[in-house]
Amino acid sequence: MKIADLTNTAVNTVTTLKTFQRIVLAARPKGRVSPENFRMETLPQLISSDLAAGEVLVRNHYLSLDPYMRGRMSTAKSYSAPQELDHTMLGATAGVVVASRHAEFSVGDSVVGHLGWAEMGVTQGNLLRQVDAARLPLSVYLGVVGMPGVTAWYGVNRILQAQAGQTLVVSAASGAVGSVVGQLAKLIGCRVVGIAGGEKKCSYVVDQLGFDACVDYKANQTEAELLDCLRAAAPDGIDLLFENVGSSVFDASLACLNPYAKIALCGMIAGYNSASQPLKHANKLLTMRAMLQGFIVTEHMDVWPQALTELAALVASGQLKYHETIAQGLAAAPDAFIGLLSGQNLGKQLVKLS
Amino acid sequence: MKIADLTNTAVNTVTTLKTFQRIVLAARPKGRVSPENFRMETLPQLISSDLAAGEVLVRNHYLSLDPYMRGRMSTAKSYSAPQELDHTMLGATAGVVVASRHAEFSVGDSVVGHLGWAEMGVTQGNLLRQVDAARLPLSVYLGVVGMPGVTAWYGVNRILQAQAGQTLVVSAASGAVGSVVGQLAKLIGCRVVGIAGGEKKCSYVVDQLGFDACVDYKANQTEAELLDCLRAAAPDGIDLLFENVGSSVFDASLACLNPYAKIALCGMIAGYNSASQPLKHANKLLTMRAMLQGFIVTEHMDVWPQALTELAALVASGQLKYHETIAQGLAAAPDAFIGLLSGQNLGKQLVKLS
Repeated sequence: MKIADLTNTAVNTVTTLKTFQRIVLAARPKGRVSPENFRMETLPQLISSDLAAGEVLVRNHYLSLDPYMRGRMSTAKSYSAPQELDHTMLGATAGVVVASRHAEFSVGDSVVGHLGWAEMGVTQGNLLRQVDAARLPLSVYLGVVGMPGVTAWYGVNRILQAQAGQTLVVSAASGAVGSVVGQLAKLIGCRVVGIAGGEKKCSYVVDQLGFDACVDYKANQTEAELLDCLRAAAPDGIDLLFENVGSSVFDASLACLNPYAKIALCGMIAGYNSASQPLKHANKLLTMRAMLQGFIVTEHMDVWPQALTELAALVASGQLKYHETIAQGLAAAPDAFIGLLSGQNLGKQLVKLS
Repeated sequence: MKIADLTNTAVNTVTTLKTFQRIVLAARPKGRVSPENFRMETLPQLISSDLAAGEVLVRNHYLSLDPYMRGRMSTAKSYSAPQELDHTMLGATAGVVVASRHAEFSVGDSVVGHLGWAEMGVTQGNLLRQVDAARLPLSVYLGVVGMPGVTAWYGVNRILQAQAGQTLVVSAASGAVGSVVGQLAKLIGCRVVGIAGGEKKCSYVVDQLGFDACVDYKANQTEAELLDCLRAAAPDGIDLLFENVGSSVFDASLACLNPYAKIALCGMIAGYNSASQPLKHANKLLTMRAMLQGFIVTEHMDVWPQALTELAALVASGQLKYHETIAQGLAAAPDAFIGLLSGQNLGKQLVKLS
């Protein structure tokens, strides 16, 4: 039983006075995402008799909000099929098993899955990941020890292959991915320069996370200001670039590339609301003989076990720090997501559902 | 003895009535290259007594004109140091040894070297490559069996690793590099689509070189026209891109990338006269998880022997065709170079010096 079919099949479930809520994609955004793109729905609560063999019923405690969701809201060709209209908004969730017809999951287990923007849901057990909520807080498995953390790990270790002494620049530095990128690179021995929007974020990555410097792109809006600032922060040029933002922020980094620079292209959030990402310094890709690799971490499942093991150990030992911005209740999800797209969050953006 | 020092040392050479000519960089271009950027000089002919141990005196028969020279004329940071003002314009040459103090070279040997825009010159013997002018015409060793050919070979075989059945797009398709790229890819079994300026060039690569299709970017100047045309020529999308042009031509190809596309970034000639290469479809590098590698073939000398051997055999057997555009006499070099930068040539642009 798919969550997406709930509306049609609800009539077949056992009648109950209890309900749960979900949010569906009501309309595709034209340009910026707005609250009107979403619709909250109330459905009869799911119960154990709804489960087919191999399925698990989960009550979601946290919903993860991630920039990639913006891409799915459009029909433009991308790495995944678009989110369907009137279906539950997709997304990663962390929660607790309330009923199970899968041998590996028992009631009370803490799990991470892709139940979407909903207070509860049914999923195939083999799409769930069991997590140790006694060792680390449940929410962590959606962030630093989840997809964003593995994204950072893959980019730093597999694409950039960071080495001590190199200068690494990461944009969206205070975000769920960027904050891990910079800390992993510091542990390797890189000089790490962040790019973030606003003094609060820049102070956070330097003072709390130990980055060597951070460029505030909101305080340096002209091309020349941003470039001057970046050159001052990375006086020996950029060897490694972990790009999350795109557009003028990416362009400034391109201008500072060193010979044989490597670029892990993870996101271009600045352009998610529009089609165009003009780059003036693309010629540096040629003149610096740069290597650029676009990637999506869910296509590299082979690294997840190693990455998650390492990330969990670093968090447990206090070597890897994280911050969460938590919206309260499912109804807050649309505004929190819109805020994420304009950089309102610090660290991982979550919605607390219970 | 460096060619660049000729003016100062000429007084020390044996007096003779004979002279030779060279062209120096008189001024760096501001924007487009113009004839005023060059100055012709007449110098006393070089003779054998000018040679130090290990040096060779060469009479140049052909001068190679290549897009990379535009980069050297500017002081912008690139893969090489800029050409110095008032020094002989650099460039590859093919000629015949007229005097030698190097054990491996004898009078009458055919050689390729970097003697620059000059009718004759002195060079270290170890910077010369001996070629077989009995097997293939001397000029070929500056083109299809020279740097442009090896550039194509490296991009197709080492960066793109072209496989039968893939669609490869190459811009500047009728040029010295592009024409070899497309033919090598056809021999591998790719579908090959060229992009070139004008009906003559497009007909040449399809009818003479066997490309599957060619898009005329001069006849399709708007973004939409160019994109429609490219989509029609590469209906299954682009798996491999060998980019020589940059700017709007590159951008159109980016828009058509398939998942896991590979890009060999060899040149961005469209932007050589200006700083900016705006790209609107850079987001495709992310969404298609593309790999891009900028390169300069002189940093991969290890492949040259294999590449030159293969290219020479293909030319000798008639499997690899080429075309030359030949300007007559050193004085014609500046205009020929300016023409090259705006795509006036078909195939390899040479200057015949003798």
